[in-house]
Amino acid sequence: MASLSKVAELLLGADNVEILTHHYPDGDTLGSAYALCLMLRSLGKRARVLTSGTPARKYEFLKKGVEPQEFERKFVVSVDVAAPSLLGENQQEYEDIIDLCIDHHGTNSICAKQSYIDANAAATGEIIYELSKEMGIGLTREMASCIYTGISTDTGCFRYSNTTACTHLIAAELMAVTPDWHVINTEMFEVKTKEKLALEKMVYKTLEYSCDGKCALIYTTLEMQEAAGITDDEMEGLASIPRQIEGVLLGITMREKEDGTFKISVRSNKDVSASDFCLRFGGGGHKAAAGCTIKGDLESVKKQLLSAACEML
Amino acid sequence: MASLSKVAELLLGADNVEILTHHYPDGDTLGSAYALCLMLRSLGKRARVLTSGTPARKYEFLKKGVEPQEFERKFVVSVDVAAPSLLGENQQEYEDIIDLCIDHHGTNSICAKQSYIDANAAATGEIIYELSKEMGIGLTREMASCIYTGISTDTGCFRYSNTTACTHLIAAELMAVTPDWHVINTEMFEVKTKEKLALEKMVYKTLEYSCDGKCALIYTTLEMQEAAGITDDEMEGLASIPRQIEGVLLGITMREKEDGTFKISVRSNKDVSASDFCLRFGGGGHKAAAGCTIKGDLESVKKQLLSAACEML
Repeated sequence: MASLSKVAELLLGADNVEILTHHYPDGDTLGSAYALCLMLRSLGKRARVLTSGTPARKYEFLKKGVEPQEFERKFVVSVDVAAPSLLGENQQEYEDIIDLCIDHHGTNSICAKQSYIDANAAATGEIIYELSKEMGIGLTREMASCIYTGISTDTGCFRYSNTTACTHLIAAELMAVTPDWHVINTEMFEVKTKEKLALEKMVYKTLEYSCDGKCALIYTTLEMQEAAGITDDEMEGLASIPRQIEGVLLGITMREKEDGTFKISVRSNKDVSASDFCLRFGGGGHKAAAGCTIKGDLESVKKQLLSAACEML
Repeated sequence: MASLSKVAELLLGADNVEILTHHYPDGDTLGSAYALCLMLRSLGKRARVLTSGTPARKYEFLKKGVEPQEFERKFVVSVDVAAPSLLGENQQEYEDIIDLCIDHHGTNSICAKQSYIDANAAATGEIIYELSKEMGIGLTREMASCIYTGISTDTGCFRYSNTTACTHLIAAELMAVTPDWHVINTEMFEVKTKEKLALEKMVYKTLEYSCDGKCALIYTTLEMQEAAGITDDEMEGLASIPRQIEGVLLGITMREKEDGTFKISVRSNKDVSASDFCLRFGGGGHKAAAGCTIKGDLESVKKQLLSAACEML
């Protein structure tokens, strides 16, 4: 693994940089990517972000001031992408040509020329922050907003166990540069559309417990999505519902996709590993938050999940 | 107003200290009170906490290691109590004999011999932290847990606009002393009983919009509480539901009480002042979060609230 100073050196020597995010892009992959893009541009380099899938509307502000740039890519960086399959639509074209992989997932399986994986970082945004120091770049308001977003979304606003004293110290510094941090938190954690509320009402009805109340499962179907009038990019955040329930160790959220699969999000409490659970279905992630994809109809996928859950608990 | 060093001096010279919290005690008033109690006891003084109303079960851990002490009170301190009426059942006996008032509500109207009000502190817990430094007391794990709880609950876990860089720096220090911070966050912000979920389902049905969608109102009745099988101490947290909705500037939550009144919690967005709104009904609080109590039946109280809301918006 490369050192942080090696990473800084590589980036300082690079140009025409293409930055890749993971698919279903979240605040950390997008915030890290746009912050890095702005950092490189501040040095007069050409750089752009290539996402997989359309980012949710609420993340659009991260692009502010990042005008599109046309160039022939010479250096490819992935940020916050834990596995080749998570490159989504960009996997085939990019998985074998990544020059630098920057990530905070300990399970990272990307094959890049150079990798910098810091599993102690609460968010990839923290690494990007450290990198800005290492590269001697003074953070602008926009860069700070991007990094703050990455850190705050990946830590549940400093709530989750991945938060460290270091995370708080970085937040204190970022707040001095971006007065927008509070607006960001409101947008990321508070605002709910009326359609989202309508969907949540329906989701509550699907809630079922199993394994003596230690597992809770909810689901959404395409039909429910349509009835609520909700767009794909607003579907985030449901996964925290089943885990919140007292006594639940494994919270499973199933989301029907258009291609006949279910996207499964798993959240766990105490010593239960969501990541181990998802590995059984070819997925992965962190100990407390992981995911996988399963093909099949609602009842059969649910049965597989519940039987695996009760086996594990 | 007294200086922090004056406050430290007063407390260092005091003994037999009775510490008062506000009624419907929350994480900040309880965390601050128990931390201060432990601090005074660590100096060999006698001190105890007198709450108004039974604290919610989830706050019970704050009492850990604070054994009851019998003594004749010689010094009375109120923490996080913004107004005499908020002393609840202790108002009559105590409102005129408070020696020291420590608070972070700018609107504080307690008449005490000495007062220390720091409206820039995100939580009274922050003041207690500064006070520990001023008094030369090294924080124990229990004290740090109490203070962390106060700060994290009053800032929505570092999410709300009252959070400052200083709040983050204090959190970073507290985390080094209490490894429990993450468990505290889970208990404070995540865990929901099955009964609470059942109530929320019902509450979603009461949601109504007014003033062109700028005001949203929800309510709970004693009947709903009984149907959900929920205890009084689990009723917290509903107030954030109406404010979260896109476009809502004033979110009102009505809760029917046994004495024929409704406890009203108001949360506001952008430039709208929840505190100004509640002042109309004899209540008060912060700009973004305030409360009041109104006597009457559901429909008439609702009508008063909605008409005041539309007048204000």
